[in-house]
Amino acid sequence: MIHETIITTAARDGTVHVAPMGVRFEHGLAILAPFRPSATLDNIVASQSAVVNFTTDVRVFAGCVTGTQREWPTVSASRVPSVRLAQSLAHTELTLAETLDDAQRPTLKMRCVHAETHAPFSGFNRAQAAVVEGAILVSRLFMLPAEKVDREIAYLQIAIDKTAGPDEQTAWSWILAAIERYRASAVSKTGGSPDHAPHAMHEAR
Amino acid sequence: MIHETIITTAARDGTVHVAPMGVRFEHGLAILAPFRPSATLDNIVASQSAVVNFTTDVRVFAGCVTGTQREWPTVSASRVPSVRLAQSLAHTELTLAETLDDAQRPTLKMRCVHAETHAPFSGFNRAQAAVVEGAILVSRLFMLPAEKVDREIAYLQIAIDKTAGPDEQTAWSWILAAIERYRASAVSKTGGSPDHAPHAMHEAR
Repeated sequence: MIHETIITTAARDGTVHVAPMGVRFEHGLAILAPFRPSATLDNIVASQSAVVNFTTDVRVFAGCVTGTQREWPTVSASRVPSVRLAQSLAHTELTLAETLDDAQRPTLKMRCVHAETHAPFSGFNRAQAAVVEGAILVSRLFMLPAEKVDREIAYLQIAIDKTAGPDEQTAWSWILAAIERYRASAVSKTGGSPDHAPHAMHEAR
Repeated sequence: MIHETIITTAARDGTVHVAPMGVRFEHGLAILAPFRPSATLDNIVASQSAVVNFTTDVRVFAGCVTGTQREWPTVSASRVPSVRLAQSLAHTELTLAETLDDAQRPTLKMRCVHAETHAPFSGFNRAQAAVVEGAILVSRLFMLPAEKVDREIAYLQIAIDKTAGPDEQTAWSWILAAIERYRASAVSKTGGSPDHAPHAMHEAR
């Protein structure tokens, strides 16, 4: 079972990195598998830690994947040398337990050492799910036929129109703008850094 | 902004009713709009109360909408004469503040009088979102062309295959079985009670 989350990490010099990533939880471990090159990977190796943030603010997903906004407010983690999102419903702090190295995609098995709950879940929102799907589409524009993208966006737009609040509308506008930018530019791929590459959210559709 | 939740209510005789329903939160009020006839509506009028349950257990959504399992463990609410799901991430207890009556679809404005958080949110899961969309499809089988249903199910199946855990697999199997049952029976509509009717999750796709 994969959960779409926001991973926050800090470099040795304190530079913060925020990246959407799919996480698998198994036997008290959080399993991450970032594709190289990855700032998240570098920061985890350097700090031996990371934070998995459970947020329903889909602007963070859409902002990072589209490159519209990659910086989000963070505060120091409680138990590990890392940072967490200032706003989330909950977060778990992780330390690196085991690395299965790989030239393309190492697997990081991380121990959950501390967890905090900040706010209650307020139920499924279809528009939030649509933004998550839209973010995945954006990360895969370079390999998807335009008509497939148009068809899926049209399908997802229905949930946006019916159930979105202001934050979801904002995030969705970033998704649509990123698709337009991609099409307007023959050279651009996704505008994404490695952490925002196709597989960052464990996607291979 | 609409959240897909589980509304639990109790009749005067204590009979519990569990129903998926879209809820809008505005100015400290929860707005419900059940279609008549509705056991949820009857119970709210009788008890002047309800509970909105925030759960990511999509079996409850799929179980109720398909009729596969309509009874789920509940416990007494803390402050209102109602019940809540025994398992949820959070719940809010509501009292009826205002009714805008309507022959078909009254609007119930309910005051949030008590809230409890039970467990942290563990991130978006695409399979859970797919089950919610599948549940909406099931509730609208009677008015959708079969090929549209097949196309959407095929699309949603991708997220199931990639990200589901056992509960999501179970819920999805109920969705697929409900579609098969519907097609096998010319007379059956959805097998749903009024609360599981097309609009129960605020849907008009």
